Amino acid sequence: MKKISLLGATGSIGTSTLDVIENNPEVFSLVSFSFYKNMDLARRIIQKFQPVFVACGDVEQAAELATEFPNTSFRAGVDGLVEAAIHPEVDVVLTAVTGSIGFRPTIEAIDHGKEICLANKETLVMAGQWVMQKAKEKQVSILPVDSEHSAIFQCLQGQDKAGLRKLIITASGGSFREKKREELANVTVKEALIHPNWSMGRKITIDSSTMVNKGLEVIEAHWLFDVDYDDIEVVLHKESIVHSMVTFEDGAMLAQLGPSDMREPILYALSYPKRMKMVGEKHFSLPEIGTLHFETLDEERFPMLALAFKVGKLGGSFPTVYNAANEIAANAFLEGRIHYLDIESYITKAVESHEEIEDLQLEDIVKIDEATRTLVSSWILEKERICKR
Amino acid sequence: MKKISLLGATGSIGTSTLDVIENNPEVFSLVSFSFYKNMDLARRIIQKFQPVFVACGDVEQAAELATEFPNTSFRAGVDGLVEAAIHPEVDVVLTAVTGSIGFRPTIEAIDHGKEICLANKETLVMAGQWVMQKAKEKQVSILPVDSEHSAIFQCLQGQDKAGLRKLIITASGGSFREKKREELANVTVKEALIHPNWSMGRKITIDSSTMVNKGLEVIEAHWLFDVDYDDIEVVLHKESIVHSMVTFEDGAMLAQLGPSDMREPILYALSYPKRMKMVGEKHFSLPEIGTLHFETLDEERFPMLALAFKVGKLGGSFPTVYNAANEIAANAFLEGRIHYLDIESYITKAVESHEEIEDLQLEDIVKIDEATRTLVSSWILEKERICKR
Repeated sequence: MKKISLLGATGSIGTSTLDVIENNPEVFSLVSFSFYKNMDLARRIIQKFQPVFVACGDVEQAAELATEFPNTSFRAGVDGLVEAAIHPEVDVVLTAVTGSIGFRPTIEAIDHGKEICLANKETLVMAGQWVMQKAKEKQVSILPVDSEHSAIFQCLQGQDKAGLRKLIITASGGSFREKKREELANVTVKEALIHPNWSMGRKITIDSSTMVNKGLEVIEAHWLFDVDYDDIEVVLHKESIVHSMVTFEDGAMLAQLGPSDMREPILYALSYPKRMKMVGEKHFSLPEIGTLHFETLDEERFPMLALAFKVGKLGGSFPTVYNAANEIAANAFLEGRIHYLDIESYITKAVESHEEIEDLQLEDIVKIDEATRTLVSSWILEKERICKR
Repeated sequence: MKKISLLGATGSIGTSTLDVIENNPEVFSLVSFSFYKNMDLARRIIQKFQPVFVACGDVEQAAELATEFPNTSFRAGVDGLVEAAIHPEVDVVLTAVTGSIGFRPTIEAIDHGKEICLANKETLVMAGQWVMQKAKEKQVSILPVDSEHSAIFQCLQGQDKAGLRKLIITASGGSFREKKREELANVTVKEALIHPNWSMGRKITIDSSTMVNKGLEVIEAHWLFDVDYDDIEVVLHKESIVHSMVTFEDGAMLAQLGPSDMREPILYALSYPKRMKMVGEKHFSLPEIGTLHFETLDEERFPMLALAFKVGKLGGSFPTVYNAANEIAANAFLEGRIHYLDIESYITKAVESHEEIEDLQLEDIVKIDEATRTLVSSWILEKERICKR
């Protein structure tokens, strides 16, 4: 029995993970989980899975649920997240929270020797160097849950790492892939949230359209697979059937394909190195799909991807700044406070104004993350103030 | 240094293998080889690679070359093939001869503990049960060289065999894939020899067009990977970029892709489990290729594929008969002696008239192979006799 802590249980990856756990009750059990706002779903999860611990978004939720479920412990905030992750009964932590909030519980879970199934790419983007180092020291596996990274991980099994040439990450192109740059100025939140292939959370859907998500994936892949940025490519593949690919020195390419169903990489990460039967599998037939398309990605159309490679190569805290600026800007767009193309402007401005400090430590990363959020938030407020006059 | 015996050195796979050996002189050396007719090329191979032993097509060739190359031993016929394969200096035998002639040297090489790189699919079709049993007893690896089987083999590395669901072999459709059955009656040898994607030997190009080649591959895959026929599928994929695929119980699919270059699976088999750099690699870019197509294969259009599944499931000597009848019929077509669709008729007739013997032994297989050849040859002669009247 694999005992799971699920951080971000009420989101898209979270509910897919619950589905996988529910369908395999003899193999997986839910020991703890976290949620942020969705109390109704949190209640149903507690009723169904009877976890011993739940991390809540705030103290009022924790108090309310504690009266309803006397057999479960509740705690709020980041401390709750950490406690959910490092609970002594937990074997594996699946980090499905969005954004840099996933950083501290992931680090602490590694410190406590918990296996990590990583769906929270921001943790590696923020602090990949420290996270991978710590995982190595603690001999903890970090298994990818992102479909692209799971695809690469699946393709690399049993292969000669020395003969690896390139990682090729596929990109659907996101909501606005058919639009030119000049058409992007006045797009709406509603338009941005219509992803052509995947049903995902709001923030990641915005990140897909700006290609920041792919940028974060490139940086994540760099750390997960220890591959140079020059050996990572992004290819436009509109069908999202090929989840990613690798090439080798002999010219061979391996690819992982499948339906757009996050339960597959989740199940693979949880059952690894075994393969378990998917219950309620989505129908998938290549002859029925018929055609797969591949195109080069226009870097001028998607400048955030080129910027991700740039901050990745600069290293240090530059990816931290890129990610933090994006979190603030993407959320401001979702709140209707800034225009779509402002997301790019704020990220670029934050990266360009960032000065690297000497002898960077993990503690500095957390401070730089916070400072960037404060800075970008202040820029947005300032612009709102000026424009309201 | 891996010391190689190359059976069928002057054919398509043979010359590609020589290219791989020549490009990696610090890793591979050619100890022995066989050829059938091409004396000029045989001479050049001896000059370049200085093998210790050469198996010739006939005794005249052997005598002639012996005078020219005093440092090399020569011998003719099947005994020569066997001697080339089991030469004491040989580590690995790459069997690139076409047809059932590859059977005896492969069996004897396994008996002598030589590693097998198998490009001669007929050996497993004829006698898969015995060959795999013997390889297991002798702890000899049989590594696939056929691009489809190499693809599957590459996809299965590091994977949970218990979680394997299906092998999906891709088929280009061959020379006549755009033709309907009623258009096949009067096609010529010249038309049949124009393969859309691969430059191969004459017989395998015919076999591709009749889909017998894919049928042989299905049977070969059954033996190589120990997979039920019901778990093997064939999918039409006109570009020949995806060389084959596998699916797992969790719904994931892995595929191996690459240019139409037999040197890749050859190099992989010879360097396995390592990956070596391909010298003079063919350019390959998915965005440049742009589009990949997949279709179901029409069994009525290609009845030889359904027949292959049928003889495979019947087992015993039925696949032997299917293969032997095809070798005689395909060669008769190449010689202009029968019509294209007669190939199918003779194979079907041979299979339908075959009666399985009880307690089948390996010796019986060789006899049934010969008897089928004699029978189908006699049918062709008889028809020629009648039609000449």
